[in-house]
Amino acid sequence: MSLDTTFSALADPTRRAILARLAQGETTVQELAEPFAMSLPAVSRHLKVLEHAGLIARSREAQWRPCRIEPGALKDVDDWLALYRRFFDECFDRLDLYLKKLQPKGPKAKQRKKESKHGRRG
Amino acid sequence: MSLDTTFSALADPTRRAILARLAQGETTVQELAEPFAMSLPAVSRHLKVLEHAGLIARSREAQWRPCRIEPGALKDVDDWLALYRRFFDECFDRLDLYLKKLQPKGPKAKQRKKESKHGRRG
Repeated sequence: MSLDTTFSALADPTRRAILARLAQGETTVQELAEPFAMSLPAVSRHLKVLEHAGLIARSREAQWRPCRIEPGALKDVDDWLALYRRFFDECFDRLDLYLKKLQPKGPKAKQRKKESKHGRRG
Repeated sequence: MSLDTTFSALADPTRRAILARLAQGETTVQELAEPFAMSLPAVSRHLKVLEHAGLIARSREAQWRPCRIEPGALKDVDDWLALYRRFFDECFDRLDLYLKKLQPKGPKAKQRKKESKHGRRG
């Protein structure tokens, strides 16, 4: 599935709430509908969007057709997000700073090395 | 910003391509428009959606108003995704299995302990 479809499916609070419920374990449409004060057809429509986006799967074997989370599309979101992790991950930032300290390169680094007497460990 | 707005903004390939370009460094609307064969007003509309979702910020100081990535909204997506990481993160799964092995609890665990003679280390 494309990220367009995945992000679009995730842009709805009810669908995210359905995923949150399914994170606790697989369940039926009936059970999913209960906390939302929503008709079964309305819940079914949301499930279809989630299923189309590859975010959930519904068993075709059992008559009660339980729904469960499918990890593939969420993994795709995580892989996409990895490109931007350095912008928000403080740990990554600190690691980055630390690595830069360890391996100074180029004229600026040489200048910095002159200014402070902290040598490189590389 | 809400996750609704963030996910909705991310559901467009051009907007994700703009973010990918901005991940390389801040730039102007003119420079952003070049690779997309798109009019400046069209790019501006996409930038407004991204700005409204808190995914980018545009400087109000410089006349050329450079755009840059804002980490907050992406961090919110990452925090949301953390609830589902165990479904797709193999490392997490392996760690989870390992921790379960180390600290068995309840009647099932006791039974498992009886069946195999691997004791707990806790």
